[in-house]
Amino acid sequence: MNNNDIKYMKLALKLAKKGEGKVSPNPQVGCVIVKNNKIIATGYHKFFGGLHAEIDALEKCKNPKDATMYVNLEPCCHYNKKTPPCVPQIIDAGIKRVVVAMKDSNSLVYGKGIKQLRNKGIKVEVGILEKEAKRLNETYMKFITKKIPFVILKLAFSVDGKTKTIAEDSKWISSESSRNIVYKLRSATDAILVGSNTVLVDNPSLTSHGMGKNPVRVILDANLEIPSHSNVLNNEAETVIATSKNADKNKKTKLINMGIKILELPSKKGFVDLKKLLIELAKLNILSVVVEGGETVAQEFFRKRLVDKIVFFICPKIIDGEKYIKDAMIVKNVSIRKIENDLLYEGYL
Amino acid sequence: MNNNDIKYMKLALKLAKKGEGKVSPNPQVGCVIVKNNKIIATGYHKFFGGLHAEIDALEKCKNPKDATMYVNLEPCCHYNKKTPPCVPQIIDAGIKRVVVAMKDSNSLVYGKGIKQLRNKGIKVEVGILEKEAKRLNETYMKFITKKIPFVILKLAFSVDGKTKTIAEDSKWISSESSRNIVYKLRSATDAILVGSNTVLVDNPSLTSHGMGKNPVRVILDANLEIPSHSNVLNNEAETVIATSKNADKNKKTKLINMGIKILELPSKKGFVDLKKLLIELAKLNILSVVVEGGETVAQEFFRKRLVDKIVFFICPKIIDGEKYIKDAMIVKNVSIRKIENDLLYEGYL
Repeated sequence: MNNNDIKYMKLALKLAKKGEGKVSPNPQVGCVIVKNNKIIATGYHKFFGGLHAEIDALEKCKNPKDATMYVNLEPCCHYNKKTPPCVPQIIDAGIKRVVVAMKDSNSLVYGKGIKQLRNKGIKVEVGILEKEAKRLNETYMKFITKKIPFVILKLAFSVDGKTKTIAEDSKWISSESSRNIVYKLRSATDAILVGSNTVLVDNPSLTSHGMGKNPVRVILDANLEIPSHSNVLNNEAETVIATSKNADKNKKTKLINMGIKILELPSKKGFVDLKKLLIELAKLNILSVVVEGGETVAQEFFRKRLVDKIVFFICPKIIDGEKYIKDAMIVKNVSIRKIENDLLYEGYL
Repeated sequence: MNNNDIKYMKLALKLAKKGEGKVSPNPQVGCVIVKNNKIIATGYHKFFGGLHAEIDALEKCKNPKDATMYVNLEPCCHYNKKTPPCVPQIIDAGIKRVVVAMKDSNSLVYGKGIKQLRNKGIKVEVGILEKEAKRLNETYMKFITKKIPFVILKLAFSVDGKTKTIAEDSKWISSESSRNIVYKLRSATDAILVGSNTVLVDNPSLTSHGMGKNPVRVILDANLEIPSHSNVLNNEAETVIATSKNADKNKKTKLINMGIKILELPSKKGFVDLKKLLIELAKLNILSVVVEGGETVAQEFFRKRLVDKIVFFICPKIIDGEKYIKDAMIVKNVSIRKIENDLLYEGYL
């Protein structure tokens, strides 16, 4: 591993990231082809079903013979998918060396792509910026190995740990920039999930607010309580309602006629079986879910040990027993510092 | 203001900080004397009743005539205190220019020291690193202007906002390094305050654990419930118990005989009047109090709007409904980022 290898792999990762929110259920892949220390082509996987990054790059090369290819994921070698495998095309192009950030967790590929390249005398190096590569495709890795989506739990709360006031006021607890990050996160995620109470109280539309594609909206509503004029049922995005087997049949039919997908699941104490729900969502090619509320839903995901990643927005407010967010105390001059794995949060009232 | 002024004032602030935890109820002050661009002497206020920083520095100078003096607080000009005023001695020494970070909030000095220097033809510049200087002496400023101590509220909680488990397990919620910071904070603060429940449940000794001087221990115990063998009643540090007027007289006498100071205060719903308590503590020359628990005490301080500063340790754990800290989920690969005034906290489970 030398500095140039790192530089080119960083570029491959950057290119890969351009496919975020567009390539699912495929992984995000970028590719850089270098010859005599010059980049002769770059490529990336742009959308599901589109060219793989390696081929996108190779097609732009005049003469890739003896070049080095940088790619953040092991090139594929399997058939029965949208595009033909990349490995034979890399071999045919005369590539001399392939630098790979990580093996493909897909058991149809895992190590086999690398082996096929090596069998043809191509030098293959694996593990450069592996950590970054794994982070980039964390949802894909979870999905391909566990067959359920990667679950991101997002919460916004005041620094005294309140997601809402006693009067259920939670609007604008966080800053505009934080909300924009949330919209971006939604656009990069296949689905967004909330409980029926969030729909009943806040009536959100759960879209990306123009920051990218809208995720599929998944509503936990064991008793089909949300009204049919709820914003989450509008046509801005697809909606799935996870409900129990014994919820009102007429309501189900009505929702299905509105174009809503109904998933019937076992339920207990008003909560559908979340593990089974995730399995069903995986079948819909949903690789990642951002869980956005409310607190009871978050607890249920924690208790069932189904959360992979937390994304918490901690707002400089002390809500304590206040009725409205506007009455919360504001924490000023906040400074933050990491102390081992703890976070030291200081501020003035 | 030039770069040299900033450099020397930074040094004065650094020297001042050496008096932390030792000079109360005086402010922390450092002094640097510069002549022909060379430091000819430095000094600082080392302990309550000791030399002021300006005099400590002047005494080390062979010939301070025409020199510049850097001092983080306006030199004093008032009598009726442990040491004579500094201003006349600065004038006598022939100092030509005085650079001051901030005016002294003490109404006996505020601007008068500066005026006296200027009246003698000394050039005085005010406001260099003022923000840093005010931060350094924040407890002194609060005390001298409001006549009550500066209140620091310290809490350690998991990132899901729990200070303890359902089984009241709160021990070692934070890391060793965080605990050392807390001990250091205690040694820099005049008093530490907790509620009786913390004493009953954890039986802490509330000392600095060898990290410096021990603060006065203040226990809120309206009904005198803590047992006489509690660690907070040992002789490692002074202890004050804030109780109600109608608490058991025999218990009071017993505690007084043990050397404990009893403050009798009006109380309501088992809580002593915190504002009145702070006024009493100020009379004991306590400039700063660190409130360390539990949650009810913290809430009471918040509700009465008596908190000046928060010091929160946010630990990478999800306690949720677990019974013991050891069963909490650990958050790994934590990354933190400021988004406007919010904190974005990300991690993996």
